[in-house]
Amino acid sequence: MSRFLSKASESLLPYTPGEQPQGRKFIKLNTNECPYPPSPKVAEAILAGYEEIAAGCGTAGAAGRAEKADCGCDAGATEAGKMAEKVAQIMPPELANLRLYSDPEERVLIEAIAAHYRVGTNQVIAGNGSDEILGFAFRAFCDSEAPLQFADLTYGFYPALCGLYGIPFRVVPLEEDFTLNIEPYKNCGNNVIIANPNAPTGMNLPLSAIEEVAASNPDRVVMVDEAYVDFGGESCVSLLPKYENLVIIQTFSKSRSLAGARVGFAIANPELIADMNRIKYSFNPYNVNRLSILAGAAAMRDWDYTKECTGRICKTREKTTEALRALGFTVLDSKTNFIFAKSGDMPGKVYFDGLREAGILVRRWDSERIKDYVRISIGSEEEMETFVKETEKLVEAARKGR
Amino acid sequence: MSRFLSKASESLLPYTPGEQPQGRKFIKLNTNECPYPPSPKVAEAILAGYEEIAAGCGTAGAAGRAEKADCGCDAGATEAGKMAEKVAQIMPPELANLRLYSDPEERVLIEAIAAHYRVGTNQVIAGNGSDEILGFAFRAFCDSEAPLQFADLTYGFYPALCGLYGIPFRVVPLEEDFTLNIEPYKNCGNNVIIANPNAPTGMNLPLSAIEEVAASNPDRVVMVDEAYVDFGGESCVSLLPKYENLVIIQTFSKSRSLAGARVGFAIANPELIADMNRIKYSFNPYNVNRLSILAGAAAMRDWDYTKECTGRICKTREKTTEALRALGFTVLDSKTNFIFAKSGDMPGKVYFDGLREAGILVRRWDSERIKDYVRISIGSEEEMETFVKETEKLVEAARKGR
Repeated sequence: MSRFLSKASESLLPYTPGEQPQGRKFIKLNTNECPYPPSPKVAEAILAGYEEIAAGCGTAGAAGRAEKADCGCDAGATEAGKMAEKVAQIMPPELANLRLYSDPEERVLIEAIAAHYRVGTNQVIAGNGSDEILGFAFRAFCDSEAPLQFADLTYGFYPALCGLYGIPFRVVPLEEDFTLNIEPYKNCGNNVIIANPNAPTGMNLPLSAIEEVAASNPDRVVMVDEAYVDFGGESCVSLLPKYENLVIIQTFSKSRSLAGARVGFAIANPELIADMNRIKYSFNPYNVNRLSILAGAAAMRDWDYTKECTGRICKTREKTTEALRALGFTVLDSKTNFIFAKSGDMPGKVYFDGLREAGILVRRWDSERIKDYVRISIGSEEEMETFVKETEKLVEAARKGR
Repeated sequence: MSRFLSKASESLLPYTPGEQPQGRKFIKLNTNECPYPPSPKVAEAILAGYEEIAAGCGTAGAAGRAEKADCGCDAGATEAGKMAEKVAQIMPPELANLRLYSDPEERVLIEAIAAHYRVGTNQVIAGNGSDEILGFAFRAFCDSEAPLQFADLTYGFYPALCGLYGIPFRVVPLEEDFTLNIEPYKNCGNNVIIANPNAPTGMNLPLSAIEEVAASNPDRVVMVDEAYVDFGGESCVSLLPKYENLVIIQTFSKSRSLAGARVGFAIANPELIADMNRIKYSFNPYNVNRLSILAGAAAMRDWDYTKECTGRICKTREKTTEALRALGFTVLDSKTNFIFAKSGDMPGKVYFDGLREAGILVRRWDSERIKDYVRISIGSEEEMETFVKETEKLVEAARKGR
C-alpha cells in the first residue's frame, strides 16, 4: 500500500483468481474452463472475409477489400492510401476494423442473446465478463440502505465487489450438508444474490426455490448468478414475466468456451437493465471489445455446439464422480462443470499438493469448513482419466502410509 | 430509473459517447479514431500458427496442431477428442485458446509496454481501455478526504467516474483562450488529473508545467492523461524517477489504431501500481481479454508503424488547420489527432448539422463556452479533402445567407 492509497481503499478484499500457470504444462482443472474450443462459428465471425482476401488480387479486388475492411480510406490514390491498402490486403477485415471503437450498445451480441432467450433486446445488458455485470448490478441496486445477502460458501468475488462499492453485506451459512436453505432469504429486507448452481459446491436449487425467494422480496432485487446453469440446471429466465425484481446473470466463460474473450450478460426487466446501463455509462461505455462482441454473438447462435460440449462434459462429470466415490471420496452432487470432493484417506492439502506434483492443477481454499475439499473442473475425457489414475495412486499411498 | 435503483446511483452523471452510426455510411470524424488499420503485426499475432494449419494435413500434423492450440485434449482417441481435433483444424490456435481465461497479469502486454518506455514491469498496469484505468486510479487515490481537481473543458468522463465512486471534485475553468493555467493546480491540496494534450481543445502543456504541478503537490497524486501524446506532445514518463506521485495514463485507441480492442494502461511507481491492482482485483481480475493482450503487445512492439501513422495524421492535421483558417475559422493549435474549430460565419450547431447532412460526423457540445466549436477528428487525407470541400460549401452558403 502506498501512502497515497485512499482511506476508502485500505479495507478492500481483493479476489484471488485461480493460478494461471506459465511455463510448466499442467492439466488445468482449476478455473472451470471448457476443455473444448469455442464453436467454429466464432472463428468464422472473426475471420469473415479473410479467405477472400487471401485468395484475391488485382486493383478491383483491392478496392473491394478496402471497402469491406471499412478502413476509412479510398485505396490507391495517395501514399497514405497505399499504406492502408497494403495492410488491408494482408489483414482480416474485422482485425483492420479494430481501429474503430466497438458498438457501445453491443447490438449484434445483445440481439443474439435476446433471440435465444426470447426476451426483448431492452432486457439484456452485456459486459466484460460476468464479473463486470455483477459490478453493474451491485452498484445499481445496493447501498447502505439496501445491503446484499449471500451464502458463506459461494463465489468469492461477491464480498470483493461489495468492498469496492462500500456495500454492507450479510453472509448466511449454508447448511451442514452444503445445501442452501432458502428460509433466511425469504422476506429478508436485503437484496439477494444466489449462485445457482452454486460454486464451489456445484449444488443446484430447483426453480421453485428461486421463485419463492423472488416472490417473498417484492421490494428487493433478487440476483441469480447462472454461470453454470447449462450443465444441468434450469434457468429462471422463464420466471421473468412474473417477477420484476429478478436479475439473471450469465457468462460465456464456461459452457460457451469463451473465458478468454470476457463476455457476460444479464437478463432482467427493461427498467432494471436501464438502471444497470446507467452504471455502465458512468464507468466504461465501450465495455466489450469488437472481437468479443462478434465471438459472443456467434457462440450464442450455435447452440447445438454448446449442447454437444455441455453434454460431453456432464457425461465425463458423472463418470469421474463415480470413480472418486469408488475410491472413498465424498463427492457433492454437481450440476456444473466441476465437482467438489473430499478424500476419506487424506487431508485436502495433501491431495491438492499430490495432484500438483503429478502435473494436475485443481482449486482449494483454506477456510475451515471446506479445507478438506478440492474443486475439480471437468476437463476432457482423457484428462479426467489421467486425473483418476493419479488420484488412485495418491489414495493408495495415503492408505499405505497409515 | 426503476424503483430498485439505489439512492447512491440516482445522482450519477453517465457519459455520452460519440455517435457510432449503424446503417448510413458516414465519414466518421467524431470519436478520434485512427484512419489507418492497426499494425500488420497485430493480425500476425492473432493468426499465429494459422497459416500452417490451413496448409497442413495428416495425423502427425493434426496432433501438432492440437498441441499448438493448447486445446487440452489428446487429439484422435475418442469421440470428444475427434470433435476438438476437427475444430482445431479449422481454427487459428489463438481463437481456440479463447476457451481459457486470459492472463490476469497480462504479462505479454505489460512486458511490451515496459520495454518501450524503459520502466519496470511492476510500473505498468493494463486495463479494458484507459477508461477502466482511470477508474482504478480514481478509486485507489481519491475519496472525500482526497478530492479530485480538473479543468472545466476536458474529458467528460472524469466527472462521470467521480459520481460512480462518490468522489468530490473541484472544477477549474480554463483561461479565456482555452489554455490551462497551472497556478490553481500548484499546492492545491487535491489530487489532480490533467489531460495533456487536452481534449477537446487539443492544446498541449510543456513538460515543465506538469513538473511544476507534480513538484508542488508531493502528498497528492498527479494523474496525466496522455491519450493523445503521440501526436506531437511529450510524455512525462521521463519525470517518473523524480516524482513518486505521478500516474501516467495512455491508451491504444488513438495512435495505435486499436480503439475496438479496448486496451489502456498506466505507468507509475511500483507502489502506486500495486494500489491500482488492489482495485483491479476487487473489480475484474481478468480485465483484458486474450486477443487484446496479443494485439496490444504486437502494436506496442511495432513502433515504426505507429510513427508512420501519427506522422501522416499530423501532416493532414496541419493541412486541414490551414485550410480552415483560410476559410475564416478560429482553429486552436492542436497536438492531437483532432482539431477544435469555430467558424467565423455560422453558429456551431449550423455547421455541425450541415456537415452531418453532407455525410460527415464531427462532435459538438451544447455547453455555453464551446457551443460554437466543433471537434473534428483527423481522418485520412482523402476524407479531410472531402471535409474541407464540404466546409467550403457551407461557408459559402452561410455568407450568401447573410
